Amino acid sequence: MLYFENDYCEGAHPALLQQLLTTNMEKLPGYGTDSYSSLAKEKIRQACNCPQADIFFLVGGTQTNAVIISSLLQKYEGVIAASTGHISIHEAGAIESTGHKVLQIPHRKGKICPQSLQNYLQTFYQDANHNHMVFPGMVYISHPTEYGTLYTKSELSRISAVCRHYKIPLYLDGARLGYGLASEAANITLPDIAALTDIFYIGGTKIGALCGEAAVFPNKAPAHFITMVKQQGALLAKGRLLGIQFDALFTDDLYLKISKNAIKTADKLKTALKAKGYRLYLDSSTNQIFVILENTQMETLRQSVTFSFWETYDPTHTIVRFATSWATKMEDIDAFIELL
Amino acid sequence: MLYFENDYCEGAHPALLQQLLTTNMEKLPGYGTDSYSSLAKEKIRQACNCPQADIFFLVGGTQTNAVIISSLLQKYEGVIAASTGHISIHEAGAIESTGHKVLQIPHRKGKICPQSLQNYLQTFYQDANHNHMVFPGMVYISHPTEYGTLYTKSELSRISAVCRHYKIPLYLDGARLGYGLASEAANITLPDIAALTDIFYIGGTKIGALCGEAAVFPNKAPAHFITMVKQQGALLAKGRLLGIQFDALFTDDLYLKISKNAIKTADKLKTALKAKGYRLYLDSSTNQIFVILENTQMETLRQSVTFSFWETYDPTHTIVRFATSWATKMEDIDAFIELL
Amino acid sequence: MLYFENDYCEGAHPALLQQLLTTNMEKLPGYGTDSYSSLAKEKIRQACNCPQADIFFLVGGTQTNAVIISSLLQKYEGVIAASTGHISIHEAGAIESTGHKVLQIPHRKGKICPQSLQNYLQTFYQDANHNHMVFPGMVYISHPTEYGTLYTKSELSRISAVCRHYKIPLYLDGARLGYGLASEAANITLPDIAALTDIFYIGGTKIGALCGEAAVFPNKAPAHFITMVKQQGALLAKGRLLGIQFDALFTDDLYLKISKNAIKTADKLKTALKAKGYRLYLDSSTNQIFVILENTQMETLRQSVTFSFWETYDPTHTIVRFATSWATKMEDIDAFIELL
Amino acid sequence: MLYFENDYCEGAHPALLQQLLTTNMEKLPGYGTDSYSSLAKEKIRQACNCPQADIFFLVGGTQTNAVIISSLLQKYEGVIAASTGHISIHEAGAIESTGHKVLQIPHRKGKICPQSLQNYLQTFYQDANHNHMVFPGMVYISHPTEYGTLYTKSELSRISAVCRHYKIPLYLDGARLGYGLASEAANITLPDIAALTDIFYIGGTKIGALCGEAAVFPNKAPAHFITMVKQQGALLAKGRLLGIQFDALFTDDLYLKISKNAIKTADKLKTALKAKGYRLYLDSSTNQIFVILENTQMETLRQSVTFSFWETYDPTHTIVRFATSWATKMEDIDAFIELL
Repeated sequence: MLYFENDYCEGAHPALLQQLLTTNMEKLPGYGTDSYSSLAKEKIRQACNCPQADIFFLVGGTQTNAVIISSLLQKYEGVIAASTGHISIHEAGAIESTGHKVLQIPHRKGKICPQSLQNYLQTFYQDANHNHMVFPGMVYISHPTEYGTLYTKSELSRISAVCRHYKIPLYLDGARLGYGLASEAANITLPDIAALTDIFYIGGTKIGALCGEAAVFPNKAPAHFITMVKQQGALLAKGRLLGIQFDALFTDDLYLKISKNAIKTADKLKTALKAKGYRLYLDSSTNQIFVILENTQMETLRQSVTFSFWETYDPTHTIVRFATSWATKMEDIDAFIELL
Repeated sequence: MLYFENDYCEGAHPALLQQLLTTNMEKLPGYGTDSYSSLAKEKIRQACNCPQADIFFLVGGTQTNAVIISSLLQKYEGVIAASTGHISIHEAGAIESTGHKVLQIPHRKGKICPQSLQNYLQTFYQDANHNHMVFPGMVYISHPTEYGTLYTKSELSRISAVCRHYKIPLYLDGARLGYGLASEAANITLPDIAALTDIFYIGGTKIGALCGEAAVFPNKAPAHFITMVKQQGALLAKGRLLGIQFDALFTDDLYLKISKNAIKTADKLKTALKAKGYRLYLDSSTNQIFVILENTQMETLRQSVTFSFWETYDPTHTIVRFATSWATKMEDIDAFIELL
Repeated sequence: MLYFENDYCEGAHPALLQQLLTTNMEKLPGYGTDSYSSLAKEKIRQACNCPQADIFFLVGGTQTNAVIISSLLQKYEGVIAASTGHISIHEAGAIESTGHKVLQIPHRKGKICPQSLQNYLQTFYQDANHNHMVFPGMVYISHPTEYGTLYTKSELSRISAVCRHYKIPLYLDGARLGYGLASEAANITLPDIAALTDIFYIGGTKIGALCGEAAVFPNKAPAHFITMVKQQGALLAKGRLLGIQFDALFTDDLYLKISKNAIKTADKLKTALKAKGYRLYLDSSTNQIFVILENTQMETLRQSVTFSFWETYDPTHTIVRFATSWATKMEDIDAFIELL
Repeated sequence: MLYFENDYCEGAHPALLQQLLTTNMEKLPGYGTDSYSSLAKEKIRQACNCPQADIFFLVGGTQTNAVIISSLLQKYEGVIAASTGHISIHEAGAIESTGHKVLQIPHRKGKICPQSLQNYLQTFYQDANHNHMVFPGMVYISHPTEYGTLYTKSELSRISAVCRHYKIPLYLDGARLGYGLASEAANITLPDIAALTDIFYIGGTKIGALCGEAAVFPNKAPAHFITMVKQQGALLAKGRLLGIQFDALFTDDLYLKISKNAIKTADKLKTALKAKGYRLYLDSSTNQIFVILENTQMETLRQSVTFSFWETYDPTHTIVRFATSWATKMEDIDAFIELL
């Protein structure tokens, strides 16, 4: 069986596991106050060209989104997100469970359009009844998006400018950030993101770690952020587990290097799919490939390959997702291409 | 100045105020346990042809929606509503503040289409990832809708059938229910609503009362509902204020009688608007009239008449709302028509 | 039957009801933006000697507590209250339902002791683990307390000083404030309260109104407070109902005048109880009298008088409460004394 | 420096880390649906003698408490806990942030007394106003407690009987459960706990794992529990990390074996402390030792040994905690004893 179901079906990159092994019996303080966490934060600050950044390690993506968003919003505010955003659909109402509305706006291939955002905010404040509505208090984008697409630097700059005009923070969900940085199509760097957003996270779970996401506040975290992390059950006692892994990921550019493998393998697979006449649902430039399969064809393929159901396209077709990762072997791509 | 801004700009219908005056110095127990509240409930049960109904009086509409919805939903559930529903937009995130998502689906003139509802539910359960999504736990409709439109009995029956198939309660927001029952176009009665929904409320605030909404559970209220009412700050110490008013409203059919005045005055105004070439945004059959005005025309009109901004139609036009009520005088309609 | 069960068993003071009647058909804007609400606020500002105060009218006490406390606290904060505080026990968890802990500290006859408060705060910040604990973000006191007792000016000043030292707001729940101001024992005035607290409310429900509490921010309300009021279902459409009543209550010192009746009647009853050898549970100086009754004696009394169960004293005795109000007649006191 | 600060200052037991290494590149499905998680659950069911148990792996203790408690409580309910319970104090208000009150009752050395519990429940239902109060919906105990003490089988049986009489679930927080099972004083087994409680968790973080707690429902988990886990950000993508570790912990009785080390080392240290005249704050029988130190003595000791501040005892004395763990070396105990 070939596995293309998701980008988290292996354990950790061997370098991370080795470092966990090496440091295992060292006695370290808890809750992220250990020296490896400090080292990791310093390396991330350098990679972001952002020496003042406040950094916190959390365990998973939904958790990170909920903690950050609920910590930054005022009681009367909600968060703007694309209707396809992870927080809009696939987090089981985590944001709402903290008391805040996700204000959904239309997407283009998973992305928020700067002009739509501008219109939404302008319309809101022009509405004579806006005191009876949820105030837009924050903007959430994912990069890469849930459809594997990327913002251009120009798009991100324009979104950032709108947010700054309205004085609301811009938050970038980087669950697959490495794949976005490593893509051939990428023209945004980590320092760009640190300069243009108010908070973002660098995903570890999907890029080489057993678990872990690094939340980066380029300027300053809200007061008592750690207590809010604790309150939401997101403060790991053995914070070393996260610090050690991120230390390894940000040593010798490992994060970017292993991300490139996902891109190369995805690109080869995508090229083959196109050549063999498969219909892409949309053309993403990262590690996720969305294909429209005829249903019987899908069932046949399922016998040799794992993949994800995405959505029903029409009564006889389904959109499915193939995902590569830092761990995908080129020989598995070749074997997959043989099957097409 | 002529007032058509909303349907709550006067105090109470004189019969209600008189009854408050008459009973004022009687010593009554609190929290809705007084004899007038009991009388009122009994009269409502009769009007609904629903002798077993559990009934509670609450103070206002947003409060009633939040208390009922949060009391009926499980933690992992949200409430389906039209994207134009009052809970979707104009309640400042009251539902989300109780931890639950409003699952917005498209509307047709403010109404949920039974087929859209069926599709939403079917698609949800077919989605392989639905365990990571908010479960649809309830359906919210308003009748009349926020656009003054009405469900037909056939539509309500079909929505009810879908809800029962999926075993989720159907909740009808009747903030303006009297106007819906009194409309010439109405073919749904109170007993129909009691038979087809699982919970609904009969609006008092907009139909003759100083404040007050009657929440009706045709079958049975959830256990300890009164404690949840208290928890959300919705339990009035002097419950008599609500009981006495609803007792008066449901004596000698007063509720329906005074509702008819709003319909008659609105119908006359609507006919005149059409005759004079005004463009209706949509044709509602109750007490709210939505008109597309050219912006300078709107400014001129504003000098003699109050009305509500609804939304921007295009750069030079605006949709405005004129509302009549139980208290609107026909002579004010005539004066308004003169101005057109 | 004689009624001493609570202080909200009648309707409104006749002057308030008359004013509702007089203004009933005036067309007024909604949500507290009417002219009577403005007038009432202005009169309250004068009574408080606090010309800059931001004032909002809400419907009931539990609601007012929940809206204010949840609007002022940060996510990581809770509110300090006496273990006997209304929010600690008798509001069905309203504060917790907004996500915040009530940090209970011991009471002395219903009051917080300034030194206990100081100790609590000092101990909290000295605790090496306080980042894993709920931050004390506000202090709640009630005046009169739930036991009818009153803070002295010296006590209130010391509590205020502690709060200001720790930079946390002091909130005074004045559900029965008039009775506290009218008591023979009172040495705190409305201007004192406005000077020493950061937020307080003047109770209407228990002192002459059908419903309504006036929330007073002597300095400034939090941004978008009205949206938070709306979000919690506490914004009355016909805000006039509250504005008109408070306008009447603060005209010609009516609020204080009618409060005095409760004090006079309570004082007479208390004197008689003592004279006849009844054991007071504690000696309150306002309109609530707590008496320890032997259980069979209690059952006998129940046949002629209504009163409230307070708590079990021991297996054969119960603490009960007798409450007077603005509406209590001296002849009912006399009749009651006859029965003792 | 000698480390006795807590029981989570090392990484994982080598057997767990080895198993993570061995399985690292296996491709496994996510979210706890992998084969190692299934194996681990099966082994835990056997250890609990509870073949029908529903088991879920979560990441940390505060998270597990919040997810379980908020999933089991109704909106109008709170959870009873000792005033010293972890959820009462050291979880930053995690329970309240889900909308529920922690109903604190007095403790005896960290334990709830069955009679106190019975009294609390009886008093609640006898209170005529209990509809205005938070319903006790669940009981939380920790075993060992936060003070290292243990319930006897008789105590646990009586608490269980009270809960069953009142039909409320009994939840046991087993963050340090292994140390409780391994104690010389223990007379409760895992099957006892499964028989007497309705839900409990077996702590991994403090007993050999990098992270992870196993939540066990001896009967049945609530419907859609996994969605509530997801909603609170507690569903690990790479669930294998937890499954593999618990599989190792429950292979060949490893969990109990390594727990015994903590007990042996603690017992030796405690004996020495007593022999040298140190005052124990209370006599615990597990891996935590609470000692009252004179403050200058404490400062001297701090130069060679790490330990935890517990609370201020009096102006010149402090209660500190020394903790051993599965990883504590007897030679470190000897070195520590040398210093005393």
